[in-house]
Amino acid sequence: MEKSVQTLTSFIIALTTSLIFSASAMAADPLPSWNEGGSKQAIMDFVTAVTKEGGKDYVPPGERIATFDNDGTLWIEYPMYTQALFAFDRVKELAPQHPEWKTRQPFKGVLEDDMKAVGATGMEGVMELILATHSGMTATEFSQEVSRWLATTKQKRFDRLYTELVYQPQLELLAYLRANGFKTFIVSGGGIAFMRPMTEKVYGIPPEQVVGSSVVAEFQLRDGKPVLARMPEINFINDKAGKPVGIYQHIGKRPLLAFGNSDSDMQMIEYTMAGEGRRLGLFVHHTDAAREYAYDRDSHVGKLDKALDQAAARGWIIVDMKKDWKQVFPGN
Amino acid sequence: MEKSVQTLTSFIIALTTSLIFSASAMAADPLPSWNEGGSKQAIMDFVTAVTKEGGKDYVPPGERIATFDNDGTLWIEYPMYTQALFAFDRVKELAPQHPEWKTRQPFKGVLEDDMKAVGATGMEGVMELILATHSGMTATEFSQEVSRWLATTKQKRFDRLYTELVYQPQLELLAYLRANGFKTFIVSGGGIAFMRPMTEKVYGIPPEQVVGSSVVAEFQLRDGKPVLARMPEINFINDKAGKPVGIYQHIGKRPLLAFGNSDSDMQMIEYTMAGEGRRLGLFVHHTDAAREYAYDRDSHVGKLDKALDQAAARGWIIVDMKKDWKQVFPGN
Repeated sequence: MEKSVQTLTSFIIALTTSLIFSASAMAADPLPSWNEGGSKQAIMDFVTAVTKEGGKDYVPPGERIATFDNDGTLWIEYPMYTQALFAFDRVKELAPQHPEWKTRQPFKGVLEDDMKAVGATGMEGVMELILATHSGMTATEFSQEVSRWLATTKQKRFDRLYTELVYQPQLELLAYLRANGFKTFIVSGGGIAFMRPMTEKVYGIPPEQVVGSSVVAEFQLRDGKPVLARMPEINFINDKAGKPVGIYQHIGKRPLLAFGNSDSDMQMIEYTMAGEGRRLGLFVHHTDAAREYAYDRDSHVGKLDKALDQAAARGWIIVDMKKDWKQVFPGN
Repeated sequence: MEKSVQTLTSFIIALTTSLIFSASAMAADPLPSWNEGGSKQAIMDFVTAVTKEGGKDYVPPGERIATFDNDGTLWIEYPMYTQALFAFDRVKELAPQHPEWKTRQPFKGVLEDDMKAVGATGMEGVMELILATHSGMTATEFSQEVSRWLATTKQKRFDRLYTELVYQPQLELLAYLRANGFKTFIVSGGGIAFMRPMTEKVYGIPPEQVVGSSVVAEFQLRDGKPVLARMPEINFINDKAGKPVGIYQHIGKRPLLAFGNSDSDMQMIEYTMAGEGRRLGLFVHHTDAAREYAYDRDSHVGKLDKALDQAAARGWIIVDMKKDWKQVFPGN
């Protein structure tokens, strides 16, 4: 009997300890890299309101959909989109098999590091670069190529891998939303197949919760083995007015919360906010030249102009990187 | 002290009771509507193997993707696909606004219940019917229309709603897979927007885990309000070789288990089985004229012919409805 009481006592101690630990975990700040203030308060008030059972703003877990843009919202995009840099590197790698590129824009510009010449070819030139470097291989081969590049290529100024140049406050926000029953999605203009190899490890977002632009894929048998071939043809551009469309086709539910950083995210945020009940729309404003970059109205990437003008009137939250974020990247 | 020992004792009793209950829940048959035998055994052996930590076939939960065809695999499809019947009813409803349909096939055939005339217009005619009845409204309006139809239209022979003519053994299988860490998806040739209004309630599969055919959608502002307009243009046909493509674009992972019922599911199953490690591919064979229907090689819906011939050699499981299923529909 002595023995069993002892066992019971240690059981109770273990139980009490675990209760104390979970209580303190609940009390801890879920967003430690966010400075106290308007943006953080707005987020926490919103999450509290929609998760409070019996409250007037309550939303059941299945409807708690949060969508995040990727470039400039979850990871660095300045001075050039990561995927474009990947495409440039691929052009250089593939150049020996394409002697014609030496004299043809936009390839010539890439090979000579002449970004002005590349830029002069406009959207059409960019599409040509993307198709030339993102198709002509199987799905598996492309995924391996992306993984290899991401594991070995460093951003120049910060001398870190791109997957390390993600925003710590956003990692905390994603985790906080998930802990509150939200399902988190990426909804990006970037290539779906370029993002998927890293989103689960870096953001905790599995491939099936990534919505993005895509090339046409084709099911083929090669030596009797089924493969998915990536074709040199655009399937869908998940940008601007394409974002609500991508959300409809892929998710089939209207987001409760949407987070972007540029005018290209306006339609996603508009669509989100037009839903019934309480919703939250946010934009990252890149204001921090010291810790990251400062750019908005005149930027060639992540242009934030109209959304800045309209935010106040439309109830969108502008998150000021310099003021709202205690820390920008993980680790330091 | 007496008091606290009493509390501890009742705590222990509660704990023991709950342990006994969970043990008995674990011991209970998770697939009671499946007869003992080859198919059931193959499924349970497979799930045990891929979920056994440290085992040679172990697969981590995130990779446990199961894809199910819908028509004829999860719910009834004979003598006519449910979505086609919905389209026919819509044609009749919309006919007053389209006087030209009285003299034009395939609409004339639908209005006169002349299925032979409709059939004579072939795939092109079917597409015309689908586009005429599935576009020209907003996403929200279409979803409401489908919900209303599904809530009010009964299948003639069984005099039950289509959402009640789902297969009980498959509902058990979906729940069993989810209880074992699988994420369950529908991958159907049917319209994604036709299925989504009912999949969560009926199958426990949320809209974002439904992959299907789609029309083009467009983001529009109507009186300043953002809507998604369904356009009279096919976006994607998620059938046959389209199924592995839909899986790639939508899920981004190769299934571990895939379940179909017709030759249109062969590519999905081929793609699934070609993955590394242990995989499972299954087909429902409709052999039960008494409890449901019996059809295969010569059927105009859910034709199962080549897959029947190749199953044994390729290691695909043919589930014989009559022999393998103790019960077909829920309730009874």
